[in-house]
Amino acid sequence: MSTRVLAADLPRHVGRPVKLAGWVHRRRELKSVTFVVVRDRSGLAQVVLTEPVALPEETVVEVHATVTANAQAPGGVELTEAVVTALSSPAKPPPFDLYRPTVPASLPTILDHAPVALRHPRLRAPFAVAAASVAGFRRALDGLGFVETHTPKIVGTATESGANVFGIDYFGRPAYLAQSPQFFKQALVGVFERVCEVGPVFRAEPHDTSRHLAQYTSLDAELGFIADHCDVMAVLREAIAGMVSGVASHAAAELSLLGAVLPDVPAEIPEIHFSDVTDKDDLSPADERELSRWASSEHGSDFLFVTGYPMAKRPFYTHPDPARPEYSNSFDLLFRGVELVTGGQRLHRHEDYLAALAARGENPAAYEDYLAVFAHGMPPHGGFAIGLERWTARLLDVANVRQVTLFPRDLHRLNP
Amino acid sequence: MSTRVLAADLPRHVGRPVKLAGWVHRRRELKSVTFVVVRDRSGLAQVVLTEPVALPEETVVEVHATVTANAQAPGGVELTEAVVTALSSPAKPPPFDLYRPTVPASLPTILDHAPVALRHPRLRAPFAVAAASVAGFRRALDGLGFVETHTPKIVGTATESGANVFGIDYFGRPAYLAQSPQFFKQALVGVFERVCEVGPVFRAEPHDTSRHLAQYTSLDAELGFIADHCDVMAVLREAIAGMVSGVASHAAAELSLLGAVLPDVPAEIPEIHFSDVTDKDDLSPADERELSRWASSEHGSDFLFVTGYPMAKRPFYTHPDPARPEYSNSFDLLFRGVELVTGGQRLHRHEDYLAALAARGENPAAYEDYLAVFAHGMPPHGGFAIGLERWTARLLDVANVRQVTLFPRDLHRLNP
Repeated sequence: MSTRVLAADLPRHVGRPVKLAGWVHRRRELKSVTFVVVRDRSGLAQVVLTEPVALPEETVVEVHATVTANAQAPGGVELTEAVVTALSSPAKPPPFDLYRPTVPASLPTILDHAPVALRHPRLRAPFAVAAASVAGFRRALDGLGFVETHTPKIVGTATESGANVFGIDYFGRPAYLAQSPQFFKQALVGVFERVCEVGPVFRAEPHDTSRHLAQYTSLDAELGFIADHCDVMAVLREAIAGMVSGVASHAAAELSLLGAVLPDVPAEIPEIHFSDVTDKDDLSPADERELSRWASSEHGSDFLFVTGYPMAKRPFYTHPDPARPEYSNSFDLLFRGVELVTGGQRLHRHEDYLAALAARGENPAAYEDYLAVFAHGMPPHGGFAIGLERWTARLLDVANVRQVTLFPRDLHRLNP
Repeated sequence: MSTRVLAADLPRHVGRPVKLAGWVHRRRELKSVTFVVVRDRSGLAQVVLTEPVALPEETVVEVHATVTANAQAPGGVELTEAVVTALSSPAKPPPFDLYRPTVPASLPTILDHAPVALRHPRLRAPFAVAAASVAGFRRALDGLGFVETHTPKIVGTATESGANVFGIDYFGRPAYLAQSPQFFKQALVGVFERVCEVGPVFRAEPHDTSRHLAQYTSLDAELGFIADHCDVMAVLREAIAGMVSGVASHAAAELSLLGAVLPDVPAEIPEIHFSDVTDKDDLSPADERELSRWASSEHGSDFLFVTGYPMAKRPFYTHPDPARPEYSNSFDLLFRGVELVTGGQRLHRHEDYLAALAARGENPAAYEDYLAVFAHGMPPHGGFAIGLERWTARLLDVANVRQVTLFPRDLHRLNP
């Protein structure tokens, strides 16, 4: 049996017989000739038949044929003298035409029928971009000595915030889905110094918006032996550059299909201190958009670090700015108008944790496991978390994060 | 401020001043000299002081000193003329001595104090091996055109098996933690043809054994356009070879510390058909050990494929052997006496799914989302799942899977 040739590789086989396999993407019957466009994971190929075929779109086919040069055909080749065999027939048609250049369907229709809708090249492309981004993230951090970890998603206490956690029945006991790997990645700085994790995080978000999901993919990193948050920002810059470079090398075709343009990542991402931005205690989405426009016009950068958020707006484990303790050694990274990353230096001394909890009127007993980490000598450390779906959405200029999430979960959606 | 030098890099700095940072691993005071061994992520370094220092083990220190050759010292160098500064002091000692070559603690003690216990080089090492294995898995599959995905861990129906699922309160509705990405990876074969995922899976295992966990890390792959399960086994062979090669290149020191030996992965892993092994309807753990011994003595292989498990023992989506329909186009991969991987060809025709559910007396309405995948033309496909912790445990000859799991979750354990 001959080996399968992918559509994208056909031009290397001109004049030779090949076996192609894929889906009937489109069928067009003219008077004396039938064109069948076959879709496989590499792209499209045109098959020319002299007889009509009764194969509806999305039939899975195997094609034995000869590769013939034809400047008019996609990729400069078409398949002639073809014998087409159906491997599997659809029981019903797709909810919309998968072959049209634009997507003739609403987001709910797409999401309700995701397993077939995502076959549309434009709907599939964001996930190739996401995969390339994650690969680039890992490559960058691997080069910097980070160890990748896999930590529990079921936790006994809802440390980060009491609200918005999903409860589980854990063998008759209450437990929760982890909102982040924060506790574990900090603990593992004591073991590996530099750790990263790519994994699901869970938020019982009661908001029904275009950017809130019940589960998303968090790209986490944490590192020890830093001077302050600037060392964390330097690693984050490398991670983002790795993601951009991953997309450039592994998903250029998808990027181009979607008409998206990769950002330049400046060697030094511009930064501005929170106190130079506003007298308020937080930034609104409108503030973030305005700051991004400023970074673009002033520095020619799609990225901007906002540093020094007020301590009152950051979690209890945030390290204060030693010179101005009302501000923190933390940052957000804005990307094309939205907050993409949050990070900063964390407290590392046991006594500082006790003081921080006391200052917020929290009971240290509720943080027993967390505090135990810092009882044993922890170095100055910090980290960050990048939301993968938010990154992909912004990179591709997609309005709703659900368009770049495989089978999104939200307030209303639990299927498919 | 000078740049930090890692312990492993000191030999390249003989005669020069350096900054080292890490933890006080061990302190030994002799009459006229004090030795402080400092541990960082790269290894150990000996610091020689002429005055005693009051720094208990696990103090985080920064050391400014000169690198001096000393054939007796670990790595052939030691640090002299040293100034040691504490960055952070432990509030209490570790539960056991971290500097002893063997681990003087029981498993429950280790797990109760994991954040500090894992600093012991022998307890830390398995996780470097696991990380290197995962990197090798991804590299192998990336080279074969697989796209890495991130799919939902919260599902609306407990498709795979009604038992052993964790229930969640999902905005007031019942939902479940996914026992595997089976549904999603099959659906995505229709989109990408070849997909893989590294992520958590959840089993509400009521068994209190050395190999059952409530969460583990599953290395999943699924591919379309196969002839049968043999094509899946060929990809699995490449994945395993990639994992072995990843450990060889990225965790050789840890492997050697633990006295473990990497297996050879035969170009063709030997295989045996279920019907040639037993007349029973399943294999016991003792059977698996005996078969592994046979593969080792007969074929010199640490790996053995057992193919053709009876259909009655496989999930409803399993593809039968066309020649002998009571047997399946499925396999287990045994590794050094245990089942490491399960996989096989799946059904791909809509009508075959309907027939398979009917034959098992199942209601197709309960599988609505799953069946929808196959209504739209799916190619012959199959896949496999490797349990990361089981792989690491067997590779390192560790008796209990909890020793190679970061913060394990089981019937009794939900913290730390």
